[in-house]
Amino acid sequence: MSLIVQKYGGTSVGSPERIKEVAKRVKRWRDKGNDVVVVVSAMSGETNRLIDLINEINAAGASREKDVILSTGEQVTIGLLSLALESIDCPARSYTGTQACIRTDSAYSKARINAIDESKMRADLEAGNVLVVAGFQGVDAKGNITTLGRGGSDTTAVALAVALKADECQIYTDVDGVYTTDPRVVANASHIAKMGLEEMLEMASQGSKVLQIRAVEFAYKYDMPIRVLSSFDEGDEGKSTLVTREEDVMEEVLVRGVAFNRDEAQLTIEGVPDQPGVAYKILGAIADVNIEVDMIVQNVSSDGFTDFTFTVHRNDYDQAKKALCELGEEMGANTCRGDDKIAKISIVGGGMRSHAGVASTMFKALSDEGINIRMISTSEIKVSVVIDEKYLELAVRTLHEAFGLDKI
Amino acid sequence: MSLIVQKYGGTSVGSPERIKEVAKRVKRWRDKGNDVVVVVSAMSGETNRLIDLINEINAAGASREKDVILSTGEQVTIGLLSLALESIDCPARSYTGTQACIRTDSAYSKARINAIDESKMRADLEAGNVLVVAGFQGVDAKGNITTLGRGGSDTTAVALAVALKADECQIYTDVDGVYTTDPRVVANASHIAKMGLEEMLEMASQGSKVLQIRAVEFAYKYDMPIRVLSSFDEGDEGKSTLVTREEDVMEEVLVRGVAFNRDEAQLTIEGVPDQPGVAYKILGAIADVNIEVDMIVQNVSSDGFTDFTFTVHRNDYDQAKKALCELGEEMGANTCRGDDKIAKISIVGGGMRSHAGVASTMFKALSDEGINIRMISTSEIKVSVVIDEKYLELAVRTLHEAFGLDKI
Repeated sequence: MSLIVQKYGGTSVGSPERIKEVAKRVKRWRDKGNDVVVVVSAMSGETNRLIDLINEINAAGASREKDVILSTGEQVTIGLLSLALESIDCPARSYTGTQACIRTDSAYSKARINAIDESKMRADLEAGNVLVVAGFQGVDAKGNITTLGRGGSDTTAVALAVALKADECQIYTDVDGVYTTDPRVVANASHIAKMGLEEMLEMASQGSKVLQIRAVEFAYKYDMPIRVLSSFDEGDEGKSTLVTREEDVMEEVLVRGVAFNRDEAQLTIEGVPDQPGVAYKILGAIADVNIEVDMIVQNVSSDGFTDFTFTVHRNDYDQAKKALCELGEEMGANTCRGDDKIAKISIVGGGMRSHAGVASTMFKALSDEGINIRMISTSEIKVSVVIDEKYLELAVRTLHEAFGLDKI
Repeated sequence: MSLIVQKYGGTSVGSPERIKEVAKRVKRWRDKGNDVVVVVSAMSGETNRLIDLINEINAAGASREKDVILSTGEQVTIGLLSLALESIDCPARSYTGTQACIRTDSAYSKARINAIDESKMRADLEAGNVLVVAGFQGVDAKGNITTLGRGGSDTTAVALAVALKADECQIYTDVDGVYTTDPRVVANASHIAKMGLEEMLEMASQGSKVLQIRAVEFAYKYDMPIRVLSSFDEGDEGKSTLVTREEDVMEEVLVRGVAFNRDEAQLTIEGVPDQPGVAYKILGAIADVNIEVDMIVQNVSSDGFTDFTFTVHRNDYDQAKKALCELGEEMGANTCRGDDKIAKISIVGGGMRSHAGVASTMFKALSDEGINIRMISTSEIKVSVVIDEKYLELAVRTLHEAFGLDKI
């Protein structure tokens, strides 16, 4: 007998009919002898409806009140799914974030889970119930309702799985797992049956949208296996991807997949005096306007002056450029410029740790296609490059083929 | 400086525009130096939308889950009104039933308020906030969400007013107060500026729909003055009805108003043996099928046999008739019959206590119009009669005139 935590996203519970389908699936897992805890999102469209109401009244208002409003989306779904389960003779009880004692900090709209008191839920499980828990929400120490931010339902599911010591956390989505790259860009992308949590962490941070990065971080930290499945499969034996601790992934491959994103923009400041503290001064100016920096490259100084390049989210581009150029003038920099037509591509794979030559294969493949590399950044199990946005699809296909990912 | 609890119904908060209007009104009351606690219903239409979702999935499902779903309607409104208040520089904080510590029993969908722990709200008021509390909902001892049933927002407002020792509980509706009878039936019905809580209690139980009877019961029990106002008045000096303790109502009038309802049906059983326990036996059979009885009349026995007549809600008519006739057969009654085309009319007034002759004036006025009285029931401050439904409007107009209610 296993304890399974399942999470169903907004599309999976998007209508009364879909909710009934989810109920049947939950019951099948339970009938096999498992204890089941289900985490659900708001019905698709509902969160946007609530955001529209908020924006009609006070778009810039208190996040505390917005969280009170937005958390109702999931609250409706937990009640409806519990009713659907009851109607097919599967005893169920719903839990709001408050009732599930999902304690968070008080950072409304982007709260972080501090602890879960699972005693009440465990008693309810032992009484034979399926538990249906509202994703995306929690409660702070003073009883205020908080939300974890969009996509936070994945995080709720993993956190509950950890707190309840579940055997597996199943994330139901509209795709049947993780692929070597986005199948919309590379038609023959390969399905990955099993991969490491650290690899998934890099894939998610580098732009793969299958799992929320915070959920993967949580799973990685607590070694919780995640299985990605499609809620549109008819049966329960369809394709899936098991994301698990590294030692459980038997075949460690060189490159697991190609991730990419078009959400970043590049900023460069040239000819600043190469003195101690210059990086701090530049990045500090960006941090002061509350903008996060992703990749950072500083060239080796030749003549007492240095160049400095970094990327930010494309939404922050204008504001970051203004802050940077004001600072550049103050510091006597030669030029200050930026480009928001870039793309970042990453190859990720646990096997890179012990194999040299992966980066050079990547650079050669891109060079052979005449694709210029603007920035490079590496970690133990990934290599990322920034290129012109217009070459994105070509670069993804090129790398996918260069590393033989279509033949897995 | 006064503490005022205000309640706004679903029509008053039916759109973002209406919510902004409510915010302005709340701020005006606050700017006059009052502490203000606002209780709100779900936006009009929202509760029905949620009920439709429930019915698509499992109409006969657990009330616990239905309450989880239905309570979200008010939760959205408290957030939106708080945002609207913030946008006009009026600091506000929302409270769900759980957060307001409105403790109820566990009778889902029709819970009763046991206690309110107001300490947190009081601290928030002292910090200068307007409090916006979700009506219609509470929390049981185990943290389950409960609802008070439809119209329960009035009860929430009065209960909060009592717990916070408010100076006045203002109920905003789509009418500007209580009238001597329904103005849709009698065009020259008079507006009542001030009346007693006991009178209002009788008016509400006899069919006046302006205030929920449970809310009036609560106010009567704890002597909390209620003011009925229209949320559609432009200013705050419009007409209203103050419902207050009897000694505060200076002019005690003979008859305050004419209330009526068409929601009842009449059942009669004739020729049952007049033995001790017969009333218990008959009403017990009705109670056994969970039906509430309103008026009861038993004629004096002449020949060892008696007749027994009572009324039930029209929705329960078929079921009650079936139960009664089965029992009648068993008891050897002569006949068992019913009529669901009846109406109940009541005259209510605190002055009746000390004046005789009110009932006879009523009966004569009806008799002069050829209206037959089927049943009579009296209390200290009301006389109710049951008549044919078709005479309802005529009877209301006749009584309204007979007691001079158009000349107040």
